[in-house]
Amino acid sequence: MVVLFGVFVRFSPEADAHWEEEKREMNLTSDIENDFYFRYPSFQDVHVMIFVGFGFLMMFLKRYGFGAVGFNFLLAAFGIQWALLMQGWFHSFKSGKILIGVENLINADFCVGSVCIAFGAILGKTSPVQLLILTLFQVTLFAVNEYILLNLLHVKDAGGSMTIHTFGAYFGLTVTRILYRPNLEQSKDKQGSVYHSDLFAMIGTLYLWMYWPSFNSAISEHGDAQHRAAINTYCSLAACVLTTVAFSSVLQKKGKLDMVHIQNATLAGGVAVGTSAEMMLTPYGSLIVGFICGIVSTVGYVYLTPFLESRLHIQDTCGIHNLHAMPGLIGGIVGAITAAAATEDVYGKEGFIKAFDFTGEYKARTPSVQGGFQAAGILVSLLMAFAGGALVG
Amino acid sequence: MVVLFGVFVRFSPEADAHWEEEKREMNLTSDIENDFYFRYPSFQDVHVMIFVGFGFLMMFLKRYGFGAVGFNFLLAAFGIQWALLMQGWFHSFKSGKILIGVENLINADFCVGSVCIAFGAILGKTSPVQLLILTLFQVTLFAVNEYILLNLLHVKDAGGSMTIHTFGAYFGLTVTRILYRPNLEQSKDKQGSVYHSDLFAMIGTLYLWMYWPSFNSAISEHGDAQHRAAINTYCSLAACVLTTVAFSSVLQKKGKLDMVHIQNATLAGGVAVGTSAEMMLTPYGSLIVGFICGIVSTVGYVYLTPFLESRLHIQDTCGIHNLHAMPGLIGGIVGAITAAAATEDVYGKEGFIKAFDFTGEYKARTPSVQGGFQAAGILVSLLMAFAGGALVG
Amino acid sequence: MVVLFGVFVRFSPEADAHWEEEKREMNLTSDIENDFYFRYPSFQDVHVMIFVGFGFLMMFLKRYGFGAVGFNFLLAAFGIQWALLMQGWFHSFKSGKILIGVENLINADFCVGSVCIAFGAILGKTSPVQLLILTLFQVTLFAVNEYILLNLLHVKDAGGSMTIHTFGAYFGLTVTRILYRPNLEQSKDKQGSVYHSDLFAMIGTLYLWMYWPSFNSAISEHGDAQHRAAINTYCSLAACVLTTVAFSSVLQKKGKLDMVHIQNATLAGGVAVGTSAEMMLTPYGSLIVGFICGIVSTVGYVYLTPFLESRLHIQDTCGIHNLHAMPGLIGGIVGAITAAAATEDVYGKEGFIKAFDFTGEYKARTPSVQGGFQAAGILVSLLMAFAGGALVG
Repeated sequence: MVVLFGVFVRFSPEADAHWEEEKREMNLTSDIENDFYFRYPSFQDVHVMIFVGFGFLMMFLKRYGFGAVGFNFLLAAFGIQWALLMQGWFHSFKSGKILIGVENLINADFCVGSVCIAFGAILGKTSPVQLLILTLFQVTLFAVNEYILLNLLHVKDAGGSMTIHTFGAYFGLTVTRILYRPNLEQSKDKQGSVYHSDLFAMIGTLYLWMYWPSFNSAISEHGDAQHRAAINTYCSLAACVLTTVAFSSVLQKKGKLDMVHIQNATLAGGVAVGTSAEMMLTPYGSLIVGFICGIVSTVGYVYLTPFLESRLHIQDTCGIHNLHAMPGLIGGIVGAITAAAATEDVYGKEGFIKAFDFTGEYKARTPSVQGGFQAAGILVSLLMAFAGGALVG
Repeated sequence: MVVLFGVFVRFSPEADAHWEEEKREMNLTSDIENDFYFRYPSFQDVHVMIFVGFGFLMMFLKRYGFGAVGFNFLLAAFGIQWALLMQGWFHSFKSGKILIGVENLINADFCVGSVCIAFGAILGKTSPVQLLILTLFQVTLFAVNEYILLNLLHVKDAGGSMTIHTFGAYFGLTVTRILYRPNLEQSKDKQGSVYHSDLFAMIGTLYLWMYWPSFNSAISEHGDAQHRAAINTYCSLAACVLTTVAFSSVLQKKGKLDMVHIQNATLAGGVAVGTSAEMMLTPYGSLIVGFICGIVSTVGYVYLTPFLESRLHIQDTCGIHNLHAMPGLIGGIVGAITAAAATEDVYGKEGFIKAFDFTGEYKARTPSVQGGFQAAGILVSLLMAFAGGALVG
Repeated sequence: MVVLFGVFVRFSPEADAHWEEEKREMNLTSDIENDFYFRYPSFQDVHVMIFVGFGFLMMFLKRYGFGAVGFNFLLAAFGIQWALLMQGWFHSFKSGKILIGVENLINADFCVGSVCIAFGAILGKTSPVQLLILTLFQVTLFAVNEYILLNLLHVKDAGGSMTIHTFGAYFGLTVTRILYRPNLEQSKDKQGSVYHSDLFAMIGTLYLWMYWPSFNSAISEHGDAQHRAAINTYCSLAACVLTTVAFSSVLQKKGKLDMVHIQNATLAGGVAVGTSAEMMLTPYGSLIVGFICGIVSTVGYVYLTPFLESRLHIQDTCGIHNLHAMPGLIGGIVGAITAAAATEDVYGKEGFIKAFDFTGEYKARTPSVQGGFQAAGILVSLLMAFAGGALVG
């Protein structure tokens, strides 16, 4: 890493001491125009989600609390370094150097987020060294997939429904399928939770839930797009909590709430507006998405997870299929529909071009074509996840 | 909710894709002028206070940790949706639509904060469905009370000493009085705490304590008012910790510290500068307020809570009378005095008008008249709390 | 405190209601130019590090969780008030008044950070009153030392490798040496950790780790310096985790990971770029520093801590010698080297002057002279720590 960083990585103009001259050239009158002040608060929230959010969410296993948070710490710290390089080569490579700023840090955290998701499926089945190898390969594939979606297909996916959640979850599920051994069944008694481990897991849940608006708005365009993405995510998450609790209560015997649902399915609403949050999804659109995802995710935990394990031999320790895979797919579809339904009337003439970046070679692209490309992005992410997962697994 | 949001709720101009045109009209040169960048970091801090702060603070009961944090999560997620509508109708209603931006999200969190406070009094005595009904009514009454105070009386209450704390606490205390049943006494052994539940509760305490400067400054005017509110709150909270520890040690046998005091009374300083934090209370004024509140709140836990329970049959599980009700009243009074004592000399000519919004029909209002209206605001909040609590209880 | 604040402390112009006039005088066109918006998000992160980070990190002792977090809360709340005064007299004293703004709050938190570090060495050996006395003296000495370094020697130390970590740690180690009593040995069985106390400690570790980029960038110059400091710290910390895990695994029997190393040594990378983070250390330079510190700190826990205790009678409960003292020294040295190696080519003509503040009487200072003064700063901090620690101990 030291050698690779030494050869390739330098500061972006906004983090370089030449910024004074840069400011003059770009006609900026104030230091507050530095991208740092637009994105740093969101970056810190995302950072907390990756390390505390995912780390503590996986703590629910009674004998694996330290492993969950510790290995998550290890793989994430390794992954962000490799992600800075991989994503840098694809997106920030200028005259032989990768120029990094706060947006690169956020993207590296995002990339590692998809590894944390995959880790949720194989929790307790791998050694730290295996996890590091998994991280190395998954980060690489993530960067390739992201490049295909964002640069080749010109798809919008600011909150990563496709690139982070769909890709990460199906990658992890494929890996856990390959790692399946029949005698794993015998350790089933270790899979339970105890009272205190569930309370620690709630720390993870709440931090993911609270900071998800920052996650989905962190790399959106400055101004209205970041603002809108935060509001849409806030609404979707709020609706998702209610349907999760309602369906959890209905589907359990005696109407008792299941902690696993509260800890996980409440978050599905954030996943499912990942692509469309920065678009004009509107608050009621967000409520509908959150409403649906709470149901899908809870039903998934009750019926689908046992089915996947008994029939398809996919042992999904944390239930990422319900929290990331299905909501991620829904998010991709909602994004495609929202993009296809966009009109100049709703976005305004300038806002329309800005929102979908219909400039340069994409000047002539229409919303419905954009919708088609968004849908293609889902399929590419799925293919990359299955192929990559099979290989790495 | 979906139907109501569909009919009424749209994005505010700063979150709408038409922002590019809006910017031109308002002569803004930079995206950083979007309200999002003024308030989003404070919003996230407030969000953490509501979900982690209140949720974990109530975890101290040994058999109710999951109920506390889970039900708090449920009622808050429901409440913020209803609050967006209720507060929207009163404050952000333009040509048939509620236009929401980040300030509305903060206000919705504030509104739900008053429900979380009331929940502290009835913790362990209600079912989730009862809690949702309570939330529905309390949010509605909160919005009405807030409208009377801010719009009709033109009262300043940025940190909500009156609207959030006084109203929320006396509402909750009235409800718990109505719900009193003699045989509740028998479950008294469940009211204790254990070592680990106390450590979890400290997470709640610390997040409330640390982020309170954001709470009191979140919806203040841009610039000096937000800056000042954060500093005043910081000073008041620091002073409050010291008197709480000192009095806790003096009032207990053998000078031992009582964890309940550390967990709760240390926060009273934040409650009590809620109204006046954005005014020129000055750092030493804040220290005095924090100093007094640490004493009042700790003495309340030692002498008043047992009295309320045995004589008035008010079973205040979390001691919200000491943490929110009394400090909230003090906060209202301090706000009235600070407003009445304001002079153009201290605030500057422009600052004076800006701080109290003495424009339009309030152009002729003097500080002493403003002080009188502030005091009236306390009484209105109390009346609304008693009447509403009795009804809903 | 109330009296001293009343006599001396007022709001800085940016937090005063006269800000409207101030804005006009300074030709500022927007409220966003208020320092509050440049520093408040970082301030809140630093605040979390002091109260949750340090408080929970020290919770690992099985019978001392509440003491650690509670006493940390008490001493920090007392310390920030005294620090506002002491640092104010030295740095923000204008025409008889200390004018405080958000930067003073950050500096007060920094100052208290050095007390929290020292507390780590004497954890479990002192009463609350003794801690308050320690805080009173250490804050005073901190302010004097900081004044010598920043004002007299004109040294750069934005993240406090020297002023906070080196000074705080050697101060605490000297105090614990003085407090050594042979019969303390007998309570050794209380020094262990249990499973849940280790999970609580991980909360502290993660918050310190995640927010350290905010710590090192909080008081840097606006613009590129804050941006750069955050990136450098992020890189250093990521590298540090990997070498810590690797060396922990190599040095332990059977390759098992030691929780104490994960909880502490992973943070050494943040300490060691404290001085140089805002300089053009570059990302690969940060990786190298993090790489080295992970090794030094882990080796310190395995070999040096037992040696210090058995031979030098320095009972370092939390191992602050490995986490703060040695990395702090490394940080001072790295800062001196980075400063001495600075060229106009790397920084740009204006950036060079801005980065080291080579204006006024320091106009003629060269990088190598600056490097020499930086090195002198380390020695002064060490001397102040030993002398002060001996006296207070």
